[in-house]
Amino acid sequence: MSNPTAAMLVIGDEILSGRTRDANMHYLAGALTKHGIALKEVRIVSDDRQAIIDGVNALRAAYDTVVTSGGIGPTHDDITAEAIAAAFGKPIDVRADARAILETHYKASGAELNEARLRMARIPEDATLIDNPISAAPGFTLENVHVMAGVPVIFQAMVASVLPTLTGGAPLLSQSIRVDRGEGEIAAQLAALADEFPALSIGSYPFQRDGAFGVNVVVRGSDAAMIDAAMARLAELFPEAVI
Amino acid sequence: MSNPTAAMLVIGDEILSGRTRDANMHYLAGALTKHGIALKEVRIVSDDRQAIIDGVNALRAAYDTVVTSGGIGPTHDDITAEAIAAAFGKPIDVRADARAILETHYKASGAELNEARLRMARIPEDATLIDNPISAAPGFTLENVHVMAGVPVIFQAMVASVLPTLTGGAPLLSQSIRVDRGEGEIAAQLAALADEFPALSIGSYPFQRDGAFGVNVVVRGSDAAMIDAAMARLAELFPEAVI
Repeated sequence: MSNPTAAMLVIGDEILSGRTRDANMHYLAGALTKHGIALKEVRIVSDDRQAIIDGVNALRAAYDTVVTSGGIGPTHDDITAEAIAAAFGKPIDVRADARAILETHYKASGAELNEARLRMARIPEDATLIDNPISAAPGFTLENVHVMAGVPVIFQAMVASVLPTLTGGAPLLSQSIRVDRGEGEIAAQLAALADEFPALSIGSYPFQRDGAFGVNVVVRGSDAAMIDAAMARLAELFPEAVI
Repeated sequence: MSNPTAAMLVIGDEILSGRTRDANMHYLAGALTKHGIALKEVRIVSDDRQAIIDGVNALRAAYDTVVTSGGIGPTHDDITAEAIAAAFGKPIDVRADARAILETHYKASGAELNEARLRMARIPEDATLIDNPISAAPGFTLENVHVMAGVPVIFQAMVASVLPTLTGGAPLLSQSIRVDRGEGEIAAQLAALADEFPALSIGSYPFQRDGAFGVNVVVRGSDAAMIDAAMARLAELFPEAVI
């Protein structure tokens, strides 16, 4: 009874150069977890055709669902749609359905549907469109790959369109406690607890704050009662812990 | 005259579940860029032995340098050192040099070097140690792979130890301007500019703020004079732009 799996491919030089901090991965991770889908891997690659092709082909073969973000705008460095089409061996061109969406949008806003903007109507054959309620230019789904925009508000709107169509599992639940002790002091008890609850994941995340070390212990699983039982054991083991 | 390349492997369920926002990738990206090393790919995998082995083997074959973060603490879910040893086909055990570092540290702090903490002295054969000035437990380098802690302050200290040992290239420079227009309006001029300066990377990053769309245009390269020339052209093309 394992949960469906997902992976994400983030496309963008600006993240790899350190200029921009990615926000979409953290958002998607939380949304998938709530939906009962386990995000198992994320890859971040540059705006490079072969890197995108290799990344999406590796991920779509290994996981149930793949979400990409970035590189579907109107400029010369937006090469995601072409690369995804190539990864699937599909032709790509301006498609009538996507073009109609852009025509309506730009007519309403009084802006021109110029050649650059028309690039955003380039959709691989057989793909279905993903609605973009923010700025019209659609994403698309090809088999198990969902190609979305990189601008966070648009990415989030596209996730909201696609998520209900994905088969989820039992929601992945978690509870955590904070123990203000060195990780090495509590490691043996945590290992024993992990053995006691093999169906749960017991994670240990050390931190340092104001010069003091502590550990966040996170119990994850899909059985709420079992998580409660593990949390009760943790509270016994570390009576000083902060829930 | 291309720059040396690097990749990063982030290990940790807590990031993939959306519980924690990774901070190390953004830090490393900035540090490498300043050092003239191009970060080309990042992979984030869970605390899973095979995922770590596959990730590190793919990345170390493809890039000059690989940095990993996470999974080298004392608890049962810290399996990075074992997985890296397996990826290289090297034996791993408690090593005298690492053990001596921990003995000195825990003697000074009055804490016990128990079995869990001793796990942090498990270092693959032939690896060299990476200094940890914060909490003693070392990272290690095996060929072109640098294995570092996930706690940000420790990660950053380890990056500071390793970075001077890496061959850098000409620093990767960048300048940017903000154009408060839709990306589709300026795409044709940007594409022409990219053709005009093939040695530079002209990136276009749309944003939305307070309901208005705009674009950050980023010019990257290692030739400062050439970047200045491209920026001058941008200022001509978009006189209203904010530098």
